Amino acid sequence: MKVGFIGLGRMGSAIAARVLSGGHDLLVFNRTAEKAAGIGQAGAKVAGSIAAVCANRDVIITMLANDAALEEVTLGTGGLLASLAKGKIHLVMGTHGVDAIRKVTEAHRKAGQVLVAAPVLGRPDVAAAGQLGILPGGPKDAIDLCRPLFQVIGRRTFEAGTEPAAAAAIKITINFVLGCAIEAMGEAFALVEKFGVARPVLYDALTDGLFSAPAYKVYGKIIVDESYDKTGQSAVNGFKDAELALAAGASAGVPLPSVNVWRDRLLSAIARGDGGKDWAVMAFEQAKASGLR
Amino acid sequence: MKVGFIGLGRMGSAIAARVLSGGHDLLVFNRTAEKAAGIGQAGAKVAGSIAAVCANRDVIITMLANDAALEEVTLGTGGLLASLAKGKIHLVMGTHGVDAIRKVTEAHRKAGQVLVAAPVLGRPDVAAAGQLGILPGGPKDAIDLCRPLFQVIGRRTFEAGTEPAAAAAIKITINFVLGCAIEAMGEAFALVEKFGVARPVLYDALTDGLFSAPAYKVYGKIIVDESYDKTGQSAVNGFKDAELALAAGASAGVPLPSVNVWRDRLLSAIARGDGGKDWAVMAFEQAKASGLR
Amino acid sequence: MKVGFIGLGRMGSAIAARVLSGGHDLLVFNRTAEKAAGIGQAGAKVAGSIAAVCANRDVIITMLANDAALEEVTLGTGGLLASLAKGKIHLVMGTHGVDAIRKVTEAHRKAGQVLVAAPVLGRPDVAAAGQLGILPGGPKDAIDLCRPLFQVIGRRTFEAGTEPAAAAAIKITINFVLGCAIEAMGEAFALVEKFGVARPVLYDALTDGLFSAPAYKVYGKIIVDESYDKTGQSAVNGFKDAELALAAGASAGVPLPSVNVWRDRLLSAIARGDGGKDWAVMAFEQAKASGLR
Amino acid sequence: MKVGFIGLGRMGSAIAARVLSGGHDLLVFNRTAEKAAGIGQAGAKVAGSIAAVCANRDVIITMLANDAALEEVTLGTGGLLASLAKGKIHLVMGTHGVDAIRKVTEAHRKAGQVLVAAPVLGRPDVAAAGQLGILPGGPKDAIDLCRPLFQVIGRRTFEAGTEPAAAAAIKITINFVLGCAIEAMGEAFALVEKFGVARPVLYDALTDGLFSAPAYKVYGKIIVDESYDKTGQSAVNGFKDAELALAAGASAGVPLPSVNVWRDRLLSAIARGDGGKDWAVMAFEQAKASGLR
Repeated sequence: MKVGFIGLGRMGSAIAARVLSGGHDLLVFNRTAEKAAGIGQAGAKVAGSIAAVCANRDVIITMLANDAALEEVTLGTGGLLASLAKGKIHLVMGTHGVDAIRKVTEAHRKAGQVLVAAPVLGRPDVAAAGQLGILPGGPKDAIDLCRPLFQVIGRRTFEAGTEPAAAAAIKITINFVLGCAIEAMGEAFALVEKFGVARPVLYDALTDGLFSAPAYKVYGKIIVDESYDKTGQSAVNGFKDAELALAAGASAGVPLPSVNVWRDRLLSAIARGDGGKDWAVMAFEQAKASGLR
Repeated sequence: MKVGFIGLGRMGSAIAARVLSGGHDLLVFNRTAEKAAGIGQAGAKVAGSIAAVCANRDVIITMLANDAALEEVTLGTGGLLASLAKGKIHLVMGTHGVDAIRKVTEAHRKAGQVLVAAPVLGRPDVAAAGQLGILPGGPKDAIDLCRPLFQVIGRRTFEAGTEPAAAAAIKITINFVLGCAIEAMGEAFALVEKFGVARPVLYDALTDGLFSAPAYKVYGKIIVDESYDKTGQSAVNGFKDAELALAAGASAGVPLPSVNVWRDRLLSAIARGDGGKDWAVMAFEQAKASGLR
Repeated sequence: MKVGFIGLGRMGSAIAARVLSGGHDLLVFNRTAEKAAGIGQAGAKVAGSIAAVCANRDVIITMLANDAALEEVTLGTGGLLASLAKGKIHLVMGTHGVDAIRKVTEAHRKAGQVLVAAPVLGRPDVAAAGQLGILPGGPKDAIDLCRPLFQVIGRRTFEAGTEPAAAAAIKITINFVLGCAIEAMGEAFALVEKFGVARPVLYDALTDGLFSAPAYKVYGKIIVDESYDKTGQSAVNGFKDAELALAAGASAGVPLPSVNVWRDRLLSAIARGDGGKDWAVMAFEQAKASGLR
Repeated sequence: MKVGFIGLGRMGSAIAARVLSGGHDLLVFNRTAEKAAGIGQAGAKVAGSIAAVCANRDVIITMLANDAALEEVTLGTGGLLASLAKGKIHLVMGTHGVDAIRKVTEAHRKAGQVLVAAPVLGRPDVAAAGQLGILPGGPKDAIDLCRPLFQVIGRRTFEAGTEPAAAAAIKITINFVLGCAIEAMGEAFALVEKFGVARPVLYDALTDGLFSAPAYKVYGKIIVDESYDKTGQSAVNGFKDAELALAAGASAGVPLPSVNVWRDRLLSAIARGDGGKDWAVMAFEQAKASGLR
């Protein structure tokens, strides 16, 4: 398949490499040209503009950091909307807000193009191994056209239906459930610590049984070690996830009281200068609110 | 070991059967005498009073439904405090509040007796298989004396330390982390449903990856099926778990904002007549608060 | 009227003085006898026991600090239940939980005595001036019998109806609405401060218009001045008010999410060693959670 | 003074009439021309475009419904930025978000123009009587130039300082404190109702004492009467106030947990079809969450 790719950050590069290794004809573009060097050496062609990356492509994949970047790349001067041929597919794999997805979907539709949202589950190392979960949402035939790509990129798809915004909503939801789990652990570790329990004991009791899942093992470990300085996702980016969730809830009429809780913990962390630490720092805020640290 | 046992509900009976099958000399007592019949036929001796069940025993296990029952059995007229010989052990395996455990611990201490708290993780079927997790807390030598019992009752111990109240706190904590997970799923399923996503899609995406643990699989399934009428733990009992958590937090100086959230959902469920349904009914409350159902 | 009075703290003493000055025959008792000295010199007779203070009295007023004291004085050995003649009235003017009031009400009823709850609105100086608001709840004829007392004690009654617990609920409610107002101000002052606004500007804008009421003027001033060390009601006692509110809500099936918020702020304050400061210290907690102080 | 005025809704019209009656030279513009008819008959000149309304004016007042309108009128093609002479003042009297105010302030500054924010406290009838509270924020000399206008429009100014965003923050804050008060009353009335107390009794007890202020009298009355259909501010607009507050908090690093509570109540109301009712309908949501209605 002739594939264009925009957005070669850590996640984008890993996905692009999978597409290339799957035998697809890959043309890439990145605003910061240096980031395209690696995949270029691996065999991808490098385009110099969004218009160029769209030339003669069946599908353009974008993996962008936020809604502003998506809107700029799509709707801005010389963007995808102006460059993509009719009937072609914009496959949005980044995590975006439901309103941004709706806006861009509608713009493509009016231009005779098609948007498929397919946000992914997993980190860059999982992406590099082709083991991502993929959440496709969009017109059925367009999704079917993208399936060969999904097969090289991920291990499984979870089908959101015909609405790209629904796929965005699922991704946002999984992120917020994770935030809730981290906050709950923060409260949990603070409570037992004040009863004199060593943190690893609770960690073992949680993750040995009811909570024997990566969310609890990975983030529980960070909390036990208080290794908030080794940032995976930062507090600032976690806060953005909370904002995406609340915005989706506002759009759909769904209060999310558990999200409010950890959004507030992250906001305090940011206000106190810990915005760059791992978002598990919400547990550190909880500890402080409990008279610890 | 010569073991006395008080409290032959579903969980108590399963544990007592394990003790008996482990070759221990078991003497049981239950307020409602009929409940002792089964274990009696299996080979346990049946006592007619608390005083009688204490006769010549090394350890008395209690598995009681709530703090009031624990205090009555221990501190009431003709209770354990009056009946247990000096130096003997009261092994409390029920889920109790930290204040009740402290009160009873102190009373035993003054009477020259020893309290070990050892709440358990797992349901009656897990208990019957001898696969419980056990959370012992108490004086080290007393816990060591109980280890032969733990070996037939459970598959693993998580050591809370020398304070029985700390063991109670861990059990309460694991319960509240579960409540937080259910509430988060309630919010999650309500949100994606309003975006037109079929509930099983989210279920699969959650439990296939970050949340591939019993807590999410078991309760996610109840929410997907809305099978709140098949009650495991009732909303009323879930609310009691929230109250135990808030009381432990109040005692230790730890705010638990995530617990507040689902406590309120359960309180609404109870107020609307759903107190007897499974506590996952908090997801149903969330759905209603989102304009669904 | 022949009046007995138990509980001569600051508020009790002020009310007792009003009763005496209204020309009633006043017999007082206080556990700490010295506290009865003042009112004794003013003309009240002083009894040496609860039994003695009940002798030949139409009404016994209690103004006690908490539920434990009320239950001890009423239900304990040699308490009101044992000492009060049939048909006589126990007029409970303290702030108590709905469950304690119900328990004591029922005990009196079974003993052929009558309980009227009449918690009061106002501080000791307001009481000394006979300007309290009074919230009577109980059997209509018993309340009517107490009216001459209400007339010397307060400026106005707000009739809760025939259930003493309803009167308790109103008092608890007004207290919690106050807590909510203080918390809201805490959030308000933190927000504008971070925009560079001098606190008195917000104070003026609030209290000049929509919020020109004592709750905002008194507590807003404390927050503006950060004079949390001049304790009116302590954080610890404010926390008890929150607990009374949550317990009333649990009893009646009413979630109180706004109360959760300031209960948690007070719990943090207490955990950090500020339990003895004025309960407006919740605004200080809010400031800290906002990266201030 | 030569004054231009854009935005002749109910509040704008009332303020414009005050400016005119104060003897100022008033030129008005409204997107919907008919709305300018009334003030035109009263003596104001009517302009046909934003450019025309800016001609030869010292100050342009805008009173617009939301941030989108402010940005369109200011930054859009043919807007204020393009039309206002250097050194002239854009006096923003609407309620706007801090980010919108900052963006527009900065745009004006770069264009050599000056923005003063001066949101107002009070409803249209208060505006018509010239009794508004005014919250000016901006450069001191510009505010001084506007004072003659403030004198005919309002009864008092509360000076936010030199930052227009600070004035916006105060207005947003007062709105959110009001939302908190309404929510607290909703919880209060639900609780006492479940104890059998007639709503007016609580209303009297609240507003007679600690809460004898318009916020409680006006909104308490709506809750007592459940007259949510007589909409002052709608639930949808109240929700926007909550969003402005949370956005200001996010911008400044201030969690606002009490706002979360009533934001969620309003979101439920909207989801259930009550978005057009008065925002006091949050009390109705609270009642439903308590098993009432």
